[in-house]
Amino acid sequence: MRIVVLAGGIGGARFLLGVREFAAQRGDEVTAIVNVGDDVWMHGLRICPDLDSVMYTLGGGIDPQRAWGRADESWKVKEELAAYAAEPAWFGLGDRDLATHLVRTNLLNAGVPLSGVTERLCRRWQPGVTLLPASDDRVETHVVIDSADGEGAIHFQEWWVRHRAELPAKRFVFLGAEEASPADGVVEALRQAGVILLAPSNPVVSIAPILAIPGIKEAMEASKAPVVGVSPIIGGAPVRGMADKCLSALGVEVSARGVAGLYGELLSAWLVDPGDRFDGEVGLSVVPVPLLMTDVEATVAMVRAAAEEVA
Amino acid sequence: MRIVVLAGGIGGARFLLGVREFAAQRGDEVTAIVNVGDDVWMHGLRICPDLDSVMYTLGGGIDPQRAWGRADESWKVKEELAAYAAEPAWFGLGDRDLATHLVRTNLLNAGVPLSGVTERLCRRWQPGVTLLPASDDRVETHVVIDSADGEGAIHFQEWWVRHRAELPAKRFVFLGAEEASPADGVVEALRQAGVILLAPSNPVVSIAPILAIPGIKEAMEASKAPVVGVSPIIGGAPVRGMADKCLSALGVEVSARGVAGLYGELLSAWLVDPGDRFDGEVGLSVVPVPLLMTDVEATVAMVRAAAEEVA
Repeated sequence: MRIVVLAGGIGGARFLLGVREFAAQRGDEVTAIVNVGDDVWMHGLRICPDLDSVMYTLGGGIDPQRAWGRADESWKVKEELAAYAAEPAWFGLGDRDLATHLVRTNLLNAGVPLSGVTERLCRRWQPGVTLLPASDDRVETHVVIDSADGEGAIHFQEWWVRHRAELPAKRFVFLGAEEASPADGVVEALRQAGVILLAPSNPVVSIAPILAIPGIKEAMEASKAPVVGVSPIIGGAPVRGMADKCLSALGVEVSARGVAGLYGELLSAWLVDPGDRFDGEVGLSVVPVPLLMTDVEATVAMVRAAAEEVA
Repeated sequence: MRIVVLAGGIGGARFLLGVREFAAQRGDEVTAIVNVGDDVWMHGLRICPDLDSVMYTLGGGIDPQRAWGRADESWKVKEELAAYAAEPAWFGLGDRDLATHLVRTNLLNAGVPLSGVTERLCRRWQPGVTLLPASDDRVETHVVIDSADGEGAIHFQEWWVRHRAELPAKRFVFLGAEEASPADGVVEALRQAGVILLAPSNPVVSIAPILAIPGIKEAMEASKAPVVGVSPIIGGAPVRGMADKCLSALGVEVSARGVAGLYGELLSAWLVDPGDRFDGEVGLSVVPVPLLMTDVEATVAMVRAAAEEVA
């Protein structure tokens, strides 16, 4: 069976560790369709934070404390860029990490699509799952905020990293999404899927930008595979990250129920933490299971619950 | 008075330390016209070894042992690029140094000419002299070597760094030179010069690619300033580097006299080490003066001898 996972960065990466282990036990294959809305050009480099978090985590290169970027990292290039007053200075550009961006940028500039670049980078990291960017096209999440002359929009990374999500977000726009196509392999993977999982990633800025690419939602709806989502909200708060601020911007309740409502009819089943149990609408099974990904075993148990629910 | 110096990398940088000090004592100004023939694209970055050697040396950032690249350097990015099997792996790309290439590449890609980029980088380094690339156009030194099917040409950096100049060079070609123009400021500096100095840089691959750019030699000939060269050869051998192999490829004697012959009528005076004294042709003063640049004072003495000879 092919298990297809829609995923963002850190939460998606951790979830995929469990999916990979679950799949290995059963001889299943895993394809991860990863958000590219966080991607950004900085200092002339193409940076793909979500793809890299997943690749480094599954490939054993992630920094375990930060949960992003590379272990044993140093910051010489960043120091030097600051000495040149080269903007932006607020982005965490590690030396080891930077080599990934250099290789990627060089291949992109040579005309290799992002999916091909990702495959090339994964030859080194051997993540044990097929990593696909949601799109080879440029799709970027921008955040609409109040500005002196009405409204302005800044790149998601600027809002998230520089402003720590403290500027009130009015809404999120996925620039380029309407004209984008799913990357090579994405629609095919969804078509071949036995089950499609939505990782407990930020629904607003990790999963939504994937679903905003024309063809992906349609392929999910056309697929015979059930779609099982995992709530990123436990007890009214995100386990990590700032999904609460993103949901509030949309006027969505910060709860497992609120996020389920956001995904709507796409879902066949919805995994919630036992304390967040609620009665699902018609057609939606709400499955209580402990959702804290404390270790790989706990995550495998979540994936098993999802698989059993729709078996 | 404006002192204009044609220079390559390491030898040029060391010579310019003396020129800067000499000029400071007299209230003169210094413009260095620096070779770009060594410049190369690697990993999507534009690398300008000679400009950087001069900038780092004059700005106090050079590694004193290696005499190229940055002090307190680390090599994380290079290690990572090798782990990705990203070619070329033989080039010494330090982490601190890399930030310079990133800033440069980013500005070049935004349309800023190399002279403008160099000015921008020098705002940080404050080299105390005006640094000008010989050209804003791409001029690259390639080395013609024997290959399986007759002749091949490789980039100078590949010949020099990867092959340690061990592949016999048949000749050197300055790709793009014929169509190149002097960078902004170069012809004007030569016109305003009180004296023009040829640093004791490699005559074949540092000074010759500057002179190969149409307009530079002509501006030197049209200038009223005397041209004083400094021999890079002492006692039949280069002080540093591989000028002997380059001269041999051209069939030029590896001697102070041989190099003087190469520069020909461009020279008004030629500084040689006392042991290398010879009788100059008509119009050429051969000036014996110790040429080992052991410290700044020794180099200042060389520059003073040059200035006094043509005063």
